[in-house]
Amino acid sequence: MRFDAPLQLKSGATLADYELVYETYGQLNAARSNAVLVCHALNASHHVAGTHAGVDRSEGWWDNLIGPGKPLDTDHFFVIGVNNLGSCFGSTGPTHPHPDPAKGGQAWGADFPVVTVEDWVDAQARLLDTLGITTLAAVLGGSLGGMQALSWTLRHPARVGECIAVATAPNLSAQNIAFNEVARRAIITDPDFHGGHYRAHGVLPKRGLRVARMIGHITYLSDDSMEEKFGRQMRAAELGYSTQDIEFQIESYLRYQGDKFSEYFDANTYLLITRALDYFDPALAFGGDLSAAFAAARGKRFLVISFTTDWRFAPARSREIVKALVDNRIDVSYAEIAAPHGHDAFLLEDPRYHGVLRATFERIAAELAG
Amino acid sequence: MRFDAPLQLKSGATLADYELVYETYGQLNAARSNAVLVCHALNASHHVAGTHAGVDRSEGWWDNLIGPGKPLDTDHFFVIGVNNLGSCFGSTGPTHPHPDPAKGGQAWGADFPVVTVEDWVDAQARLLDTLGITTLAAVLGGSLGGMQALSWTLRHPARVGECIAVATAPNLSAQNIAFNEVARRAIITDPDFHGGHYRAHGVLPKRGLRVARMIGHITYLSDDSMEEKFGRQMRAAELGYSTQDIEFQIESYLRYQGDKFSEYFDANTYLLITRALDYFDPALAFGGDLSAAFAAARGKRFLVISFTTDWRFAPARSREIVKALVDNRIDVSYAEIAAPHGHDAFLLEDPRYHGVLRATFERIAAELAG
Repeated sequence: MRFDAPLQLKSGATLADYELVYETYGQLNAARSNAVLVCHALNASHHVAGTHAGVDRSEGWWDNLIGPGKPLDTDHFFVIGVNNLGSCFGSTGPTHPHPDPAKGGQAWGADFPVVTVEDWVDAQARLLDTLGITTLAAVLGGSLGGMQALSWTLRHPARVGECIAVATAPNLSAQNIAFNEVARRAIITDPDFHGGHYRAHGVLPKRGLRVARMIGHITYLSDDSMEEKFGRQMRAAELGYSTQDIEFQIESYLRYQGDKFSEYFDANTYLLITRALDYFDPALAFGGDLSAAFAAARGKRFLVISFTTDWRFAPARSREIVKALVDNRIDVSYAEIAAPHGHDAFLLEDPRYHGVLRATFERIAAELAG
Repeated sequence: MRFDAPLQLKSGATLADYELVYETYGQLNAARSNAVLVCHALNASHHVAGTHAGVDRSEGWWDNLIGPGKPLDTDHFFVIGVNNLGSCFGSTGPTHPHPDPAKGGQAWGADFPVVTVEDWVDAQARLLDTLGITTLAAVLGGSLGGMQALSWTLRHPARVGECIAVATAPNLSAQNIAFNEVARRAIITDPDFHGGHYRAHGVLPKRGLRVARMIGHITYLSDDSMEEKFGRQMRAAELGYSTQDIEFQIESYLRYQGDKFSEYFDANTYLLITRALDYFDPALAFGGDLSAAFAAARGKRFLVISFTTDWRFAPARSREIVKALVDNRIDVSYAEIAAPHGHDAFLLEDPRYHGVLRATFERIAAELAG
């Protein structure tokens, strides 16, 4: 969907016009009260559920959660997945042509403005306006998506019923920023990066993207799940004693993940999205006081979910959110799920996790019905 | 010191001759019984203690521990620091000329044979032979150095009195290998790497080394200490909204560490040393049974030390070593030090940590005297 009204960004820049691609699942009810917005994380898109027709038949990234009869039941809810600005999956981003005619149709590249969680939320709100939706039954997201869900309750508190924030944090820790920064350095120092204008040079900084993805991937998995899945399994019966060839299965797996990612993901998008993660910090304007930040969200209802083995956004970070809400006497439920899969658990089908979400959405559906 | 007898390596390759550089501190007693070998980790050398003369006046990497009146007291012990094969700090390694005359004096580069912890230990044993030392009062090492200390008790059990293994592990976990592999990929895919023969091309793969070091550095620090030291401190009063410039102090710190490291460390050495870490696995020949592996060490005395916030080689990994020793009824003391500094704690001056080492070396000195 095309938006022609300029969007003022948190950085001070303005996006004159832009396109947002989105998908919906289920039917909007007559009262327009059953909409659930699903916010995506780093490597995801508007394609949240269902299976696309066509050659790739790609499955939505949260298809195990969302659909008819699933925990977020599209027989009851109108679910919206929207691709964020700066992405490489359809909405306006650095791979799209720069609007300045002087650029001769070249891609935005590194000139695409820095976007923040707040900018995404504002753009999502405009999409809802266009769809005729004033109030969301719920906003839901995991990881960076959870930050957007939290931000909704601060930017547009009157428009959100329930906020469901999964495997997320009130801001990145120094270690989180450090991992992002190493990934960015790998991309930016790739000689094919060309200051972010690699498309104008007819190349892609795939080396950097591969390394970035490998680093990210390590932080998505728990130490234990990596140990259980790969341990010290060797690729061959005997060690080959090589510094450059693959010796262990974990190496093979990581290289594969890196290679695959570098084929489809845009490097500037990677920089933008990791920066959006770095910048998210609702407490900053309140001198670091998260409780003060959430005072504006008063009256909302929250569900916060974390996973015991998630060391990227550990349960302690979710508990900070819960504490800030409790400090404001805001209705919050908190589920800390014992799951072995680390940060990735939020994308997986864990019966306790999905049970909590199913019960929550059943309650919301019952409240909507009457 | 030059060694002209060929060294058979674990990989099957042979090193025809080689040089080992070393430093000693204190005096070897008449009985030649007070020698302590200190084994180094990834980014270290034979320069263990004291301060070098000259312009750089570099301080030994374990100078807070080793010296007159210090926990490892050089008034009582003859301490030996030896630089391992494959290093870039003096002993024969990939930066040295290839011995094959057909190579025309070019550096070994990627042709330097893969070396293992066991190879290092065997080379160290030869150095002791040359120094006229049959038995070590103790062998001591942290991290990769701890692996060498453990290996001494398996390769040359009759030659070791006490084995002191600090902040180490019986092998690398899948996650440990994963971090090493990402660092290696960053180096190997740097276009200036040239398959490891970068010196022949007159370049150095500094981009890759920088990223490798940044990754390593994150794993050396605890999440908490990084948070305390840097947190979300910004570099300027206001955010600049840039994907490529530094916004947070932690980014500045990591870039500095990476830049500095890339100026002096050799990329092939980095590959060799991370591979030596990956390969170390004394239980492998015993079907993964570490207790069976340590049966050969029977009769030794061990001190195993870990640090609570070390997530690279967590206390649980040290406890695996302790269990294997206890299973063999080997005398082992275990100290788990509550320290905030992560893996780096083994290099720092913590009073409880140094207290344990001081007491241990005082006992050994008393036994030698008595």
